[in-house]
Amino acid sequence: MKNSSFQEIILKLQDFWASKGCLITQPYYTQVGAGTMNPATFMRVLGPEPWNVAYVEPSVRPDDGRYGENPNRLQKHTQFQVILKPDPSNPQELYLDSLKALGINPRQHDIRFVEDNWEQPAIAAWGLGWEVWLDGQEITQFTYFQQMGGVALNPVSVEITYGLERILIALNNAKGIWNEDFGAGVTYGEIFRREEFEHSKYYYEVADIERTRQMYELFSAEADACLAQGLVVPAHDYVLKSSHTFNILDARGAISVAERQAFFRRMRELARQVAEGYEAQRKELEYPLLKDAKNETRNSITRPSNIEVSNIASSFLLEIGVEELPASDVDTAYEALSARVPTLLDELHLAHGEIRIFTTPRRLVVSVASLSPRQPDREDLVKGPPADKAFDKDGIALPAGMGFAKKNGVDTKALEIREEGGGKYVFAAVKQTGRPAPEVLSEALPKLVADIKFEKSMRWNDSGVAFSRPIRWAVALLGDRVIPFEYANVVSGNVSRGLRPYDSPEIKIPSADQYFEIIREAGITLDKEERKASIVAQVKEAAHLVGGEAIIEDGLLNEVTNLIEMPTAVMGGFNEEFLALPRDVLISVMKKHQRYFPVVGASLADVQTSGQSGQGQARSLLAKFIAIRNGDDIHIDIVRDGNQHVLGARFADANFFVREDVKLKLEDYRPQLAKLTFHTKLGSMLDKSDRMLKLGAEVGQLLGFKGVEMIKPLGRAVYLAKADLVTQMVTEMTSLQGIIGGEYALRSGEEAEVAGAIAEQYQTVPQSKVGVAVALTDRIDSLVGLFAAGLAPTGAKDPFGLRRAAIGVVQPLIEHDLDFDLTEAVKRSAKTQPIPVSDEVQKQILEFIAGRLSVVLKDNGFKHDAVEAVLAEQSANPAASARAVKQLSAWVGRADWSSILPGYARCVRIIRSAGVSSEQLSVTREQLVDAEEKALYEALQGTVKAQPATVNELLEIVVNLIPSINAFFDKVLVMAEDEKVKANRLGMLQKIASLSKGIADLGKLEGF
Amino acid sequence: MKNSSFQEIILKLQDFWASKGCLITQPYYTQVGAGTMNPATFMRVLGPEPWNVAYVEPSVRPDDGRYGENPNRLQKHTQFQVILKPDPSNPQELYLDSLKALGINPRQHDIRFVEDNWEQPAIAAWGLGWEVWLDGQEITQFTYFQQMGGVALNPVSVEITYGLERILIALNNAKGIWNEDFGAGVTYGEIFRREEFEHSKYYYEVADIERTRQMYELFSAEADACLAQGLVVPAHDYVLKSSHTFNILDARGAISVAERQAFFRRMRELARQVAEGYEAQRKELEYPLLKDAKNETRNSITRPSNIEVSNIASSFLLEIGVEELPASDVDTAYEALSARVPTLLDELHLAHGEIRIFTTPRRLVVSVASLSPRQPDREDLVKGPPADKAFDKDGIALPAGMGFAKKNGVDTKALEIREEGGGKYVFAAVKQTGRPAPEVLSEALPKLVADIKFEKSMRWNDSGVAFSRPIRWAVALLGDRVIPFEYANVVSGNVSRGLRPYDSPEIKIPSADQYFEIIREAGITLDKEERKASIVAQVKEAAHLVGGEAIIEDGLLNEVTNLIEMPTAVMGGFNEEFLALPRDVLISVMKKHQRYFPVVGASLADVQTSGQSGQGQARSLLAKFIAIRNGDDIHIDIVRDGNQHVLGARFADANFFVREDVKLKLEDYRPQLAKLTFHTKLGSMLDKSDRMLKLGAEVGQLLGFKGVEMIKPLGRAVYLAKADLVTQMVTEMTSLQGIIGGEYALRSGEEAEVAGAIAEQYQTVPQSKVGVAVALTDRIDSLVGLFAAGLAPTGAKDPFGLRRAAIGVVQPLIEHDLDFDLTEAVKRSAKTQPIPVSDEVQKQILEFIAGRLSVVLKDNGFKHDAVEAVLAEQSANPAASARAVKQLSAWVGRADWSSILPGYARCVRIIRSAGVSSEQLSVTREQLVDAEEKALYEALQGTVKAQPATVNELLEIVVNLIPSINAFFDKVLVMAEDEKVKANRLGMLQKIASLSKGIADLGKLEGF
Repeated sequence: MKNSSFQEIILKLQDFWASKGCLITQPYYTQVGAGTMNPATFMRVLGPEPWNVAYVEPSVRPDDGRYGENPNRLQKHTQFQVILKPDPSNPQELYLDSLKALGINPRQHDIRFVEDNWEQPAIAAWGLGWEVWLDGQEITQFTYFQQMGGVALNPVSVEITYGLERILIALNNAKGIWNEDFGAGVTYGEIFRREEFEHSKYYYEVADIERTRQMYELFSAEADACLAQGLVVPAHDYVLKSSHTFNILDARGAISVAERQAFFRRMRELARQVAEGYEAQRKELEYPLLKDAKNETRNSITRPSNIEVSNIASSFLLEIGVEELPASDVDTAYEALSARVPTLLDELHLAHGEIRIFTTPRRLVVSVASLSPRQPDREDLVKGPPADKAFDKDGIALPAGMGFAKKNGVDTKALEIREEGGGKYVFAAVKQTGRPAPEVLSEALPKLVADIKFEKSMRWNDSGVAFSRPIRWAVALLGDRVIPFEYANVVSGNVSRGLRPYDSPEIKIPSADQYFEIIREAGITLDKEERKASIVAQVKEAAHLVGGEAIIEDGLLNEVTNLIEMPTAVMGGFNEEFLALPRDVLISVMKKHQRYFPVVGASLADVQTSGQSGQGQARSLLAKFIAIRNGDDIHIDIVRDGNQHVLGARFADANFFVREDVKLKLEDYRPQLAKLTFHTKLGSMLDKSDRMLKLGAEVGQLLGFKGVEMIKPLGRAVYLAKADLVTQMVTEMTSLQGIIGGEYALRSGEEAEVAGAIAEQYQTVPQSKVGVAVALTDRIDSLVGLFAAGLAPTGAKDPFGLRRAAIGVVQPLIEHDLDFDLTEAVKRSAKTQPIPVSDEVQKQILEFIAGRLSVVLKDNGFKHDAVEAVLAEQSANPAASARAVKQLSAWVGRADWSSILPGYARCVRIIRSAGVSSEQLSVTREQLVDAEEKALYEALQGTVKAQPATVNELLEIVVNLIPSINAFFDKVLVMAEDEKVKANRLGMLQKIASLSKGIADLGKLEGF
Repeated sequence: MKNSSFQEIILKLQDFWASKGCLITQPYYTQVGAGTMNPATFMRVLGPEPWNVAYVEPSVRPDDGRYGENPNRLQKHTQFQVILKPDPSNPQELYLDSLKALGINPRQHDIRFVEDNWEQPAIAAWGLGWEVWLDGQEITQFTYFQQMGGVALNPVSVEITYGLERILIALNNAKGIWNEDFGAGVTYGEIFRREEFEHSKYYYEVADIERTRQMYELFSAEADACLAQGLVVPAHDYVLKSSHTFNILDARGAISVAERQAFFRRMRELARQVAEGYEAQRKELEYPLLKDAKNETRNSITRPSNIEVSNIASSFLLEIGVEELPASDVDTAYEALSARVPTLLDELHLAHGEIRIFTTPRRLVVSVASLSPRQPDREDLVKGPPADKAFDKDGIALPAGMGFAKKNGVDTKALEIREEGGGKYVFAAVKQTGRPAPEVLSEALPKLVADIKFEKSMRWNDSGVAFSRPIRWAVALLGDRVIPFEYANVVSGNVSRGLRPYDSPEIKIPSADQYFEIIREAGITLDKEERKASIVAQVKEAAHLVGGEAIIEDGLLNEVTNLIEMPTAVMGGFNEEFLALPRDVLISVMKKHQRYFPVVGASLADVQTSGQSGQGQARSLLAKFIAIRNGDDIHIDIVRDGNQHVLGARFADANFFVREDVKLKLEDYRPQLAKLTFHTKLGSMLDKSDRMLKLGAEVGQLLGFKGVEMIKPLGRAVYLAKADLVTQMVTEMTSLQGIIGGEYALRSGEEAEVAGAIAEQYQTVPQSKVGVAVALTDRIDSLVGLFAAGLAPTGAKDPFGLRRAAIGVVQPLIEHDLDFDLTEAVKRSAKTQPIPVSDEVQKQILEFIAGRLSVVLKDNGFKHDAVEAVLAEQSANPAASARAVKQLSAWVGRADWSSILPGYARCVRIIRSAGVSSEQLSVTREQLVDAEEKALYEALQGTVKAQPATVNELLEIVVNLIPSINAFFDKVLVMAEDEKVKANRLGMLQKIASLSKGIADLGKLEGF
């Protein structure tokens, strides 16, 4: 096939969308990061007017610049933007047709709609949709806009944003964009490569930060001035210019974390004002485009008044057809339907056989065997008005009573009076004739679908229905009869749709019973477990073929299973040179970005050295990957080539960063931390790093680190811990922070122990002790500093992740069983902070950590009461608390516990109710009167050598005392009339009660 | 025909140019004033690489904003830009084909290529070409770029810039753009009108001047920073941003005249650096696109070694076919050929009959009757080396002599020695055999064409030939034989081309004799006078049809005649409401912008009130115009409609300005003069206006103005004189300064006399005395101030038009015969200047004015000597000087002048040669000796009552004295031995000689 040229793609897309009734307009005249910013999108999606438009948008993203060296990544790439407003009801199909117009045959490729929750905080906009992948390459963003400029959209617009460079690469099966024909025999590289280099250099190295800041200020001031005069387009222009200068500052690394917030707030506020201004303007103009819009006719449900009802039980089948659901929503729907369908059928009084639920990305299926054709007849008792409103004291029906009777079709005489909730009401026994199943299902099914709730849902048409993704068809059959209903403008029927790669052909389902066979014939594996098993088998086999073993992680496997309806594994490879990249980078890219299964060598040596923390993790990677195609293996080579190209490009990108990064040693990056703000009140990341250096030594000491072999690596690791934050690789893939630091540390010649500690610092529980110490240092500094700055989490808000930080303090201490004095650590950290940390705040911090400790312990399976009992007395040393909870739980589990706790409890309770404090009382042998009293005293003296230190010590003492205690309470009246006697007795009990002090408040235990 | 939509035009043009091998690229991502600024033009036209590209460019010109109210004028219009590099040799035809692709049939319209010398000083760029007019509407700019960013272009690029809005209006025969379909059923207005309003308001009212200035500074500083790093594209981006902010400042009226220069200098310098940087970069890359370019094969001349020669004289015909020449170049070519052809034929020794020359915009024609078929044989004397180098003293030939002889094919013995210019040389008599006419013509014709020099010429292809516009064909026939030659890559032949509106069809010319008939049959009127007569006849007839009379000015008639080859008049009308616009605005727009003949009413009343200064000028205009179409009258209604639309739009634009302007009284504009800089050293225009107010009173006094009826209007007129400079109408049409002031003065309720004076102030000779006084005040202030500022004209440079100012001082005084003391006026003006004006400078000014006075007088037809004679004695009162010259000229013309001058001259000469000064001598009667001496003394005493005041008085005296003078010189020896006698006689002659003092130095006269 003749190669395509860049301009041909554009001309074809313009023609295609023009033929579909779109306006064809031009790129915007100021630099934008995306076609979305063009007023033809940003403004026109607002308000009720219809709008269909398509245009090219060269999109500028300074920090995507790669000096023209990356085959896929450009500071300026070319978008083709389409807006369809309102939803034409088949936007995915239109889109796929447009790909065909470009020469992309879906049968020769793997085209996938991969969940993407689009959000652009700078313009207060969001929407749901997908990245469209072509053989693993993202070639299009497809979004249903929900909000723009802070304004909720109604109707929703469909946005289709093609990445033209990537499409050209895919079409031509090229290695990169530079050598491809732009048109007229001139390559893309000829036109843009030098420019790409220059702009990269400009954005990263040359742009003057001070001047760019000034530009930003001037632009946003000018935007304000325009808004004040109601000039929304000029204002918008300046918002865009502000945004671009912000992006330049960002690429220059000149924006601190704290500043970023302020910048975004400002831009968002301006965008909001522009959006609102535009909306107001259109309203004032009375929506001129709305007037011209034709009133579309729409299919509407014809609900037969008399549904012919069979007399025998039949299979029921419901299939809700959707545009590709996010993987997790496939599960959500499964859970929801599994829980709801049985109860629903009960509520509907419909007898039934087996219920089966299946979900795939494209369909939610409910299958019910032997569904009763109709409800049984029955009598319901219906509650009416209070009796004294229904009848007068003479028993004559009042209007309320008569009305109620009439409404329920009974005589007033038939009304009964019953008591309910302390009042008297009239009730009617209403006979209900069982209704036909089709009728009740017809009413119930919309509600069933509506009751499926997703974490994020979206609207797409004027039905106002919100769902995970648009619903496009519904099959509802009872036997061979359609159960008619309408939901979200979709009318149920008996037509399903086939596999996406087969063009989603319409498939007629003659009856519910035939559904599964027909769907299987269509190539669709409905059952998730079956799909999963097939993937595992194929992946294993593929890995085996290259003498390796696939890393199959549950999370990834589950996700991939939910992305396809017909799994076919395809193995690809990448350039072995990339194996020199940090292993975590390789795996992260394959798994997170591409949903590939990585492959490791399967040699015996590898298997033996395999670490404890997950099989395969330490085994060496092969330059292979396994992708799962949605579809069969026709033209699988094209799919492989495409995926290989994408991965190669991603690795090249990572390689670019690493190559740039390792030009300096890790140590050399540390001073640059000065340009990252940690928090305005707490200084830069360098300031934080300096504080950590001080605190680290203290933490080491508190952890009992001794000897140069512990202290030295700790000091070095803390010193270098944050340096990787300013490397390009971490800037690009933030999730690899620490890991990259560790990798670069090794490459910079640091000790393995140091590198390991750096790498582990963000793990909740680092493996090494040095790693734990670094993590504690980091987290305690954050907690103390940010609490002091008044940023303690409130409600759901925890912008600095302090809950996670607190968990990250207690969990490692528990798992490594390390004693640690949190109170002291907080105190010493407080001294290093640039702002005062009052005693009160320190107390708050400790309480906050104790709260997390409680959560952690409960999550570890300990019972609530045992946790509470311990934490009431000790929480400043989490490891000790954990040990205590463990011991206490063991005691509570003992068979004789019920004979231990009550005795001790009596001591405690009487002390508490007497309101005595420990200091007030002393016991003198002389004051002892009764024998049991004396015996207890002796037992006490004999048993308690010292204050117990652990739960075990405490309860061993208590067990020994129990007989004496029981005897004491049996015979002795504590509250003697003689005050001295009474005080003496209380004093003795108080001694017993206070044995638990600092260990556990047994009063918190169940049964106390 | 179905109306076109805006997007259809774009899609069609993209397809058209893509099919012609152009790259189709995108608009630039920053605001530009024109597609030229896009790097795809600005940079790619530099250097030797081929480049063919087409793209849309929304072009932003803040001061074209009309709040969405003008049907034709937009702050953002859409260009479609095409660059063809190198010249494809038929770019006009390609362009016309593209119009056909849009549905524009040249036979249904009047498509014209109207001279346009494109220049963009902000980017140091220029080129020659045309505006392309469609029925009077400029729809395209067509330019051969000669320079870009200060760099001369080689090869030259063809730039075609379509104005898409105007094309849509024309295609749909619409009234304006707003209601036309953009595409998909949405109007252009729906998409852009509100935005147009907002941007107009922003640019004119809202943009913050201080902030915009700061942006400009930041942008240009950033451009510098980029250039310092060799980043040409980022630098260029900032140049564009600078340029746009400059345009905003300009629209806000924030740029003074002096500042403007500085801004332009800065932008030009940046553009130059960008261009040079880009060139250097491409060179370093070794011009990659050049490598790919195919070596095109080109037609080359096959010059037969033996041209078959006829023996009889034949007609000769040369036709040089060109792309449309500028009107003035049609005349230039005519003059050049008329002068050169006869001498050329003489030099070629070719006998011939009548020579006729014809020029039209498309062809230059030389016709020679009965051209001799060959040169006669002849002998030429060829000059050789100096005799002493050719022969030794013994007459033996030296090497130089032998060489010369050999070269000329003669024996050394045959060499002759002759004197020439004081030296002796050898000469050879060389026999020349006459060569055939075709052979010599073949050599001579390229040179003939090359010798036609134009005021501005351009290159277009790699021949490097410069001509007014590209040469595209050549017909050269002697009888029926082609005279072969090649020039500018064009090879001569016998194929001409027809009329542009007929698609310039190829026309075969079988023989020179048939040429004229064939060309006439093709509809072309070769003879300019014939075309002119036809235009006059048609225009008169058309005007007559509406009962009016056309204003046919020679200049316009000549221009129009040179714009067409087949004139057809078409009359159109415009909305009568526009007649309320100032008459000069209407006429100016019709004549200067549209080349239309205006029509005035021809009623008797009109004729009677017609003023003295040009027929018709004061007659009221009709709402009609007459255009001349190039072509016949097919579909003339479409042409009329188009022209009417254009004129309507132009008038609407003027109307917009006037309506805005008259919201204030003229007086209210005066304070705004403060924002116009007159000159840095001399302050603002308001400062100048204030100075004029002072000087005006003095000028009035010096002109002898008396009484409130003269003084009051003068004061008022001077006060208001400059106020119109800040009105929008004058900003838009600077040539109407003063005229608009007068008009607005009337509308503001000023006296007619005041308004008249304001209106006349820029005329060289204002009609009213008050007008003269205002003009003098203005001009004297300028002369004095600018001379004092050191800005006297030097050489050809006269940036402030001071020569014109000086002429404007003397000419009105002469024509109105007003006595005026320039010395005093300059002195008083000097006192009002903000900088010192030394006596020396004042003298310079007066001398400078005197120099202009001399020119004016000679231009008025007075002989050089008479003018010099008078001005040697008096120049500070031009009116008096003029009278003196007139009188003197009359005397010089008298039959007896030769008997008058010599006598007087003898007196003067003897005094001069004696070196006596007038004060030294006295005459006493007692010292008189001879009778003739005494007689002369008596005559002197009797004739000279007082020092004469005029030439007439002087010469009357002289005439009377002549007999006595003659007798005196006959008999008396002036230089007597007796010193006292001698001194007495000299004294008497000195008295006579000094009679002319302050009147004229008769010594300057011829025959003196």
